[in-house]
Amino acid sequence: MKKIEIFQRQIKDYLEDLDFEKSPPELYQPMKYAITMGGKRLRPLLTLIACDMFGGKTEKALHAAVAFEIFHNFTLVHDDIMDKAPLRRGKETIYQKWNQNIGILSGDALLAMAFDVLSHSSRQHLTKLVGILSKVAIEVCEGQQLDINFETSDQVSISDYINMIKLKTAVLTANALKAGAIIAGATDTDCNLIYDFGINLGIAFQIKDDLLDVYGSEQKFGKKIGGDILAHKKTILFVLACETDDGVLKKDFLNSYLLNNKTDTERIKKVVNIFDILTVKSRAEKMMDDYYKQAIRSINKIKIKATSKTELHSIAKELMSREF
Amino acid sequence: MKKIEIFQRQIKDYLEDLDFEKSPPELYQPMKYAITMGGKRLRPLLTLIACDMFGGKTEKALHAAVAFEIFHNFTLVHDDIMDKAPLRRGKETIYQKWNQNIGILSGDALLAMAFDVLSHSSRQHLTKLVGILSKVAIEVCEGQQLDINFETSDQVSISDYINMIKLKTAVLTANALKAGAIIAGATDTDCNLIYDFGINLGIAFQIKDDLLDVYGSEQKFGKKIGGDILAHKKTILFVLACETDDGVLKKDFLNSYLLNNKTDTERIKKVVNIFDILTVKSRAEKMMDDYYKQAIRSINKIKIKATSKTELHSIAKELMSREF
Repeated sequence: MKKIEIFQRQIKDYLEDLDFEKSPPELYQPMKYAITMGGKRLRPLLTLIACDMFGGKTEKALHAAVAFEIFHNFTLVHDDIMDKAPLRRGKETIYQKWNQNIGILSGDALLAMAFDVLSHSSRQHLTKLVGILSKVAIEVCEGQQLDINFETSDQVSISDYINMIKLKTAVLTANALKAGAIIAGATDTDCNLIYDFGINLGIAFQIKDDLLDVYGSEQKFGKKIGGDILAHKKTILFVLACETDDGVLKKDFLNSYLLNNKTDTERIKKVVNIFDILTVKSRAEKMMDDYYKQAIRSINKIKIKATSKTELHSIAKELMSREF
Repeated sequence: MKKIEIFQRQIKDYLEDLDFEKSPPELYQPMKYAITMGGKRLRPLLTLIACDMFGGKTEKALHAAVAFEIFHNFTLVHDDIMDKAPLRRGKETIYQKWNQNIGILSGDALLAMAFDVLSHSSRQHLTKLVGILSKVAIEVCEGQQLDINFETSDQVSISDYINMIKLKTAVLTANALKAGAIIAGATDTDCNLIYDFGINLGIAFQIKDDLLDVYGSEQKFGKKIGGDILAHKKTILFVLACETDDGVLKKDFLNSYLLNNKTDTERIKKVVNIFDILTVKSRAEKMMDDYYKQAIRSINKIKIKATSKTELHSIAKELMSREF
């Protein structure tokens, strides 16, 4: 079995051992539903890969790895309430399947559970690990609030956008990696390098996500194309299009993007047409590539032998190779 | 200055030093509002009292003490959303003053902040402390869910009720005390005794709260009398009244308590009349006294000199002496 498959099995086993058959079921069954719904289990995998590459025993990093996964699921449960999302991974969201109070409460309990699981980590690293997870949690709330603020703003700069996705998603990737490095006893320099890798990879990944929403294949991507446009989401494509100096084109763009005065298909067509005129796709791809290269540069700076970096390189590549 | 006043000053200073002037203000201002709204700061005081009585330095327990206070405020922010409460301590609740998403998100950030503050405690005790706070958080969620379940149930036994208030409120009091004892290096036996004291005092206090809602003086209690009856809350008085063998009286009681077929004043009068027939008040007082005595017995069993217990006795007395 390949290393990554072994790590995935460790994570799966740990998650399956969590006990949700407790009372009251109205609290624990939604928690179980959130955790067993699936997902890529990317964040805990990154923790184990980072621990392993610095020579640590992955068994020691499992508590932290799973804590990050549980935390991630908490954010999804509460985000779905805030975004009024009816579906997640093709299944009903928790607040929709049960009700809103159950969504709030089971999310809260998942957040608490993340810290409970984390507390089983070795005493030696606990101060750093609790500090990391609690700060990530606050940053993710900041990012989510910024995202909410963007909904009612038509003035979102590139740096606003990057700051938002950094807080909302990249810090979690970065700290999941850093936690693994800390547990393996990596130096502060190396911990910071793998953190930087995670930040840049996370940003590149989110830009890719924005690109796929418009330019992806519906079948391969598994989501409806143009969903972000219809939801007026402030994606990197929106932000780049807004940068144009052409006042008439900008007004036309904002009207098409923000107003519902056409059919869905017409709106998507019109917006994509303006994206084409403004070469938004290639500019976003350039940004994505730059962040990705920056991420790879951080890995290269880490002073361990190249063969130890195999898994990290391969997961980074896999994440960025989702087809258009 | 008396010891308790010194402790209160330490807590006040710590809370005032927390930095809420951060971005985005839409997240941090509601958090600040929640923390600066006031309240008795009872839980952190209990942590410091427990630490001091076992010979610990209260400075070392301040992080944990304030973590419990921040945690307590998180529960209020989310409970107010779930209970649709427009006011708290005479001021607008957060979800009401801002909006629901801000209520969810600022509550989440407060929960994360509680762990962040806690992580500054000494490394030596952190495993236990994080374990305690995360387990309390999960138990409080269980208690809140049971309370929600009770809303739609007319079959709530005395033990159901005690279990619910234990989880919803008493475990927090008990663990705030236990945390202080742990930091002071108290023995496991003493930690468990002070925990038991907290559980029993917490239950006695909640029973008192239920009694005050019906039999308290509106002016002194600061809330409208009979609010629990009008809100169909499953209080200890409701539970005790339901125990009657008299089928006709029980039906009459349930109709009066659960249906809105009379004016508010008439409903309260009718319910209180049945409480009187069933001697519910004196039975609830007896229960409260029993739990209080049980709490005091736990203090008495703690093997430290009597003078070290002064503050704990005095805070217990003060809590139970709110006038009718």
